[in-house]
Amino acid sequence: MEALPTASYSIRVRAKLPDHPGTFAKVAAAVGEAGGSLGAIDLVEAPKGYKIRDITISAADEDHSRRIVTAIRRIPGIHVIRVSDRTFDLHHGGKIEVASRHPLRTRDDLAMAYTPGVARVCRAIADDPDEVYHLTIKHNMVAVVTDGTAVLWLGDLGPEAALPVMEGKALLFKEFGGVNAFPLCLATRDVDEIVRTVTLVAPVFGGINLEDISAPRCFEVEDRLKAELGIPVFHDDQHGTAVVTLAALMNALRIVGKRMEDLRVVIAGAGAAGTAVAKILLSAGVRDLVVCNRRGALTRNRLEGLPAMQRWLAENTNPRALEGPPGRLLAGADVFIGVSAPNLITVDEVRAMAKDAIVFAMANPIPEIAPEEAGPHVRVMATGRSDYPNQINNVLAFPGIFRGALDCRAREINEPMKLAAARAIAHVVPERELSEDYVIPSVFDKRVAHDVARAVTRAAVESGVARLERGRRATDE
Amino acid sequence: MEALPTASYSIRVRAKLPDHPGTFAKVAAAVGEAGGSLGAIDLVEAPKGYKIRDITISAADEDHSRRIVTAIRRIPGIHVIRVSDRTFDLHHGGKIEVASRHPLRTRDDLAMAYTPGVARVCRAIADDPDEVYHLTIKHNMVAVVTDGTAVLWLGDLGPEAALPVMEGKALLFKEFGGVNAFPLCLATRDVDEIVRTVTLVAPVFGGINLEDISAPRCFEVEDRLKAELGIPVFHDDQHGTAVVTLAALMNALRIVGKRMEDLRVVIAGAGAAGTAVAKILLSAGVRDLVVCNRRGALTRNRLEGLPAMQRWLAENTNPRALEGPPGRLLAGADVFIGVSAPNLITVDEVRAMAKDAIVFAMANPIPEIAPEEAGPHVRVMATGRSDYPNQINNVLAFPGIFRGALDCRAREINEPMKLAAARAIAHVVPERELSEDYVIPSVFDKRVAHDVARAVTRAAVESGVARLERGRRATDE
Repeated sequence: MEALPTASYSIRVRAKLPDHPGTFAKVAAAVGEAGGSLGAIDLVEAPKGYKIRDITISAADEDHSRRIVTAIRRIPGIHVIRVSDRTFDLHHGGKIEVASRHPLRTRDDLAMAYTPGVARVCRAIADDPDEVYHLTIKHNMVAVVTDGTAVLWLGDLGPEAALPVMEGKALLFKEFGGVNAFPLCLATRDVDEIVRTVTLVAPVFGGINLEDISAPRCFEVEDRLKAELGIPVFHDDQHGTAVVTLAALMNALRIVGKRMEDLRVVIAGAGAAGTAVAKILLSAGVRDLVVCNRRGALTRNRLEGLPAMQRWLAENTNPRALEGPPGRLLAGADVFIGVSAPNLITVDEVRAMAKDAIVFAMANPIPEIAPEEAGPHVRVMATGRSDYPNQINNVLAFPGIFRGALDCRAREINEPMKLAAARAIAHVVPERELSEDYVIPSVFDKRVAHDVARAVTRAAVESGVARLERGRRATDE
Repeated sequence: MEALPTASYSIRVRAKLPDHPGTFAKVAAAVGEAGGSLGAIDLVEAPKGYKIRDITISAADEDHSRRIVTAIRRIPGIHVIRVSDRTFDLHHGGKIEVASRHPLRTRDDLAMAYTPGVARVCRAIADDPDEVYHLTIKHNMVAVVTDGTAVLWLGDLGPEAALPVMEGKALLFKEFGGVNAFPLCLATRDVDEIVRTVTLVAPVFGGINLEDISAPRCFEVEDRLKAELGIPVFHDDQHGTAVVTLAALMNALRIVGKRMEDLRVVIAGAGAAGTAVAKILLSAGVRDLVVCNRRGALTRNRLEGLPAMQRWLAENTNPRALEGPPGRLLAGADVFIGVSAPNLITVDEVRAMAKDAIVFAMANPIPEIAPEEAGPHVRVMATGRSDYPNQINNVLAFPGIFRGALDCRAREINEPMKLAAARAIAHVVPERELSEDYVIPSVFDKRVAHDVARAVTRAAVESGVARLERGRRATDE
């Protein structure tokens, strides 16, 4: 896949241009010839005979942006004052802050929000521990916890380098779910220490979102925290991905007119995401499902040396005991779901799939097969990318799931709640608008988080894990 | 001391009043007769023949507010619709939130703040760990850490009940110092576990503010964290109190014309605050200093059974080896500093002090002696309360100290930085305005945090603990 210019590689070029007609056209032409994409053009200042402008340009990568700047510099009479990287500019100083919910202007404000007034509030919580949900941030505060061992597709970068992702997650929690979230990047990879640390900081939080913790440790961390804590614990890389994938698959099946029970599904990737996708598909009724790790299909005939979770998959999927790499397994398959590595499967392998094939190639940033290549041979194609149709993005799930779980003060996020979330996401796409290119709503569709939250709360109440009978929006309080 | 009506016990009464002249006067009279203090009066609605009003009333305590409401209910024709407690109202849902520093409106915003753009930022930090200070919240984020064992004057209430204080602290950090702060209330009292937990979450934080951890564990927690972490660790109950006390004492000495070297000082209370006050006074030049615990003066003649820090005090203070309770030690003393218990000393004991005596009775909420009683017999009187002159309040210290330490990326908050902070606070009161009733600035004096930050940064640079040569305001970035 050839990289296209994107905002994530965009730059802002401050340049001094002679104030002649046609000068800016030269810049635009240079950017265009270099393959850059022109965005906003702001006037900064207009000293006599000149214009100083900030020019936003999207590039395909850092080399590309350098080439674009070089092309601008070569235009006679134009002086490039400064080049800044918009993504880094946005990160400068961090993306989130802690803000006051009430102004603190007078001595009276201070006497109520702090001493001596606050003492009565502390006393009230000490007398009735449940009051911590009314009188503090706990009811609407989620910890975004990582150890930095599986940061995006970059791998083990450590806790500090993981922080920008966790801040981004906190942003998304607030923006889409109205949930306050705070990043905790832990300086340990030890499962016992991770579990203990999260347990010890839990008094402040109403929920725990685990993030970018590598498999198989992530499974143990999640299981033990769920057992330890009475608040929702959710490993987004697993369950967020699984919920949104299921939502997209539900809608894709409406298009192709197939049923979960009848599908043959191949999953490439047996890490956090692949495992969770497999499990939710089993919950949703899929029977014929093969999961592949790097050595090929997991099968009961090859259990030796498998970590516990892959062993479970080997024993509970692949009913026909298939063997081999995912590409070869595609022959006759209805659905391919990739959460693995770039360019893993070929066009010929996709061609061998069953009629009305569904391909979700979600490896980031480069899919298992490019939509341009696979697209012509399948009925529904989805990726994890925003620059193609059908983006399977966790942002559709986690804000609404936590909103719903917090609203009814759920003790956990269980299987019925995840299935309800998937159905809610799928139903946001109206029947009449459903099409091969629109099986999953846009991440900016405001209905998604709201509908997911309502469905999750209902499922929590019905499955008996809600502490409050009816959900209430904590943010409305 | 008789309690006066305060905002911390204020209520909001919603009442339906017949729309006759003189009706509200009856309410005002009833409130006044019951000893309440009338605040804001808002019109909510005016249905035909009535006015519905929200009436804010300060009371002395909860019983008092109930008596006031009863008095209002007794007025014929007036219907009390609802009574709410303003302090609890303000705490409802928590006092802080996590906010975005940038709007997230478009797909491009998402591509820069989250995936795929954020991956480049993570990579940059992995390549150069120092970048975490530029590209994340770390440079301006402080953890407010407690185990809930010494919550205000309430004692061991546990981590949940301590949270409102920590949220309040976070509010003050932001409001006065522009510092982001996040509360961590730990579900353990074990020193090893506290130290380990804080160490493991430290990647996200630029500083650690310890709070309401009981002595003597607080000393070990602080010492070990200072040794473990390369970021400022500051136990506010110790050092915040010490800094502001020293500031007030500096100005009081300017009034009475005495020198630190010549003072006889008695400190009541050998916990976190008393210990730190003693130490900073020694640093500031005081020679004749006696610290009392519950059993009386700490002296080298009575070392048996003392915890380590009190033992140190016994060995390094009390040069005349005095014995007995603090009140008896006051004979001839120049300064009494109380960080102990209500009504600990008597008027007669204060009378026995040296000429131009200085009394800082800072036990909260009830001082060691009431200002009304001691005031006539001393030259300078201070308390920890906002309803008397000379309030010795940590809010004057910690926001500016952390602002200054973070700005120059100090590795620690050392003795020179604390002394500089005290001097800066003292100097905010101009020479010409200095008086017996004004030895310490108001907590709302905006110059304080700014001046403290500058002084602290300078002291950090001079003492060699600043990682940046010159301070810069992180919030200006």
